[in-house]
Amino acid sequence: MKKGRVFSGARPTGRQHLGNYLGAIRNYVALQQDYDCVYCVVDLHALTTLRETHELRSNTYEMVLDWLAAGMDPSASIIFVQSQVPQVTELHTILSMVTPMGWLMRLPTFKEKVRQQPDNVNYGLLGYPVLMASDIALYKADTVPVGEDQLPHLEFAREVVRRFNAQFGPILIEPQAKLSEVPRVLGLDGVNKMSKSLNNHIELAASPEEIERRVMTMVTDPARRYRTDVGNPDICNVQTLHRLFSGSPERIEEIAHQCRHASIGCVAHKREFARDLANALAPFRERRAELERDPDKVWDILSDGARRAREIATKTIAEVREAVGLP
Amino acid sequence: MKKGRVFSGARPTGRQHLGNYLGAIRNYVALQQDYDCVYCVVDLHALTTLRETHELRSNTYEMVLDWLAAGMDPSASIIFVQSQVPQVTELHTILSMVTPMGWLMRLPTFKEKVRQQPDNVNYGLLGYPVLMASDIALYKADTVPVGEDQLPHLEFAREVVRRFNAQFGPILIEPQAKLSEVPRVLGLDGVNKMSKSLNNHIELAASPEEIERRVMTMVTDPARRYRTDVGNPDICNVQTLHRLFSGSPERIEEIAHQCRHASIGCVAHKREFARDLANALAPFRERRAELERDPDKVWDILSDGARRAREIATKTIAEVREAVGLP
Repeated sequence: MKKGRVFSGARPTGRQHLGNYLGAIRNYVALQQDYDCVYCVVDLHALTTLRETHELRSNTYEMVLDWLAAGMDPSASIIFVQSQVPQVTELHTILSMVTPMGWLMRLPTFKEKVRQQPDNVNYGLLGYPVLMASDIALYKADTVPVGEDQLPHLEFAREVVRRFNAQFGPILIEPQAKLSEVPRVLGLDGVNKMSKSLNNHIELAASPEEIERRVMTMVTDPARRYRTDVGNPDICNVQTLHRLFSGSPERIEEIAHQCRHASIGCVAHKREFARDLANALAPFRERRAELERDPDKVWDILSDGARRAREIATKTIAEVREAVGLP
Repeated sequence: MKKGRVFSGARPTGRQHLGNYLGAIRNYVALQQDYDCVYCVVDLHALTTLRETHELRSNTYEMVLDWLAAGMDPSASIIFVQSQVPQVTELHTILSMVTPMGWLMRLPTFKEKVRQQPDNVNYGLLGYPVLMASDIALYKADTVPVGEDQLPHLEFAREVVRRFNAQFGPILIEPQAKLSEVPRVLGLDGVNKMSKSLNNHIELAASPEEIERRVMTMVTDPARRYRTDVGNPDICNVQTLHRLFSGSPERIEEIAHQCRHASIGCVAHKREFARDLANALAPFRERRAELERDPDKVWDILSDGARRAREIATKTIAEVREAVGLP
């Protein structure tokens, strides 16, 4: 017996990197144990900020390939593309009628987006959280894994659901946040969050050569200018990532000690981290290569996921239409 | 060969009155000659302002009964309920991504609605014109009959279509306005536009007794206080409605003359108008009664209309998805 139903969505951003893994994928995989999971590639959400959309398909394909290779299991979870279950747009349109504009305009994320793209403040951007609430409500998810920064959106979804239910009857489920602790993963620059757009990332699917090439460019303790200087591993991102990925705790402690005494150099540590990381990701790369052999496989899995998602969605929409009194 | 495709939508407002007939229905019937017509009961639009939705079904039924009895022909035109073709919500969600919020907030109709319902300014209310643009674009209508007051919305729809096409390719059709001259029909009070909410209306389906009862309450020339006073037919709403409905031009001129010379009284004129109107609407009442005999008939017609509408909608959405690049 599972504990409940999880919903989570991610924009199709193509090949995933170490930050995506620790920030979401690892958690997605783990939740499958205890929950019925619905995992969604939110291509419609991507439209709120994208002007160039020609990579939506390939970005979806590459991301889902990574998901599957990382252990997201389509036989247990529903993995699908948002727009392939158009019922979400029905619920979105209906929920938009019970969502006060003021709620949306006050959300800090909206204000932030307006700052980021002042020349592209579209109607859909304002409604982003309504679409998100529709996703969650459509699949009757009771549990939504979120990071601290997504809490306002989840609270918003709960308010929209309460308002709908108050007006039309107890049809939708008020979702609970499941706060997940997500380590902050910095990029190669050691300063910014790892992100594809800053090109400071390491892809999960990177070859050992690519991993080494990228790791070698990593910024370490900037105060350690020469091999003979002692270093501070507590502020070294190589140390942090090595700890997060693949390093044995003992060896990590040992390296920290050596770093503090200048008995290991940054270059040597990077080589070791690169090798460990490449080894740790080897099974992932193998599963990915295996999946890639049949280019239809990902699309077939997504298509089957959409079919199963539609089964839930169709029921919810029928209940919603009945409650609202649509002819 | 038809001249093109017309789309028009009307909110489900229940039994129609004389004002609805002259304002829309008469035109809907006439357009069927020259155009492929798509006529839509916009129940989703109704949700932008309705809090009480339990009459949506009965209001749809009664309105469509009037439409059919008035000569809207389901074998020629597509007559259907908006929400029964959910593809419109897909297009609505997609078009919301290319619609600048500023365009919506500047529309005079939005500002007016905010004044009318300051405590219910919902997200969907702001998007009303996007949903309208989606209706028109989904059915690839090239012609939209509008009154003067709806021109800004139509111009808005054209702009949204242009913007979508500029970004994704020439998929949608930029609709043309077909301005229809609509006489201003005043209500029984002789002051306000005829409207159900003011209860100053005469229903098309009213019985002869009901027509007489209502006509007898009509306000005439307020300066004519006694039967022996002369009247001014130019400012008498009985005279106006009699001319618009059912009166022969010769008899109307004669009455005007008699009114100016106090040789006909207001009561007598009202009785004559009530009788003429009841006679003129007799064939309408008969067709309506005939249709009502089978309570499923209206729903069957709407269901068949939705099926035909979906055929067009499905094609448009496939083209839109392809152009946008949705997976």
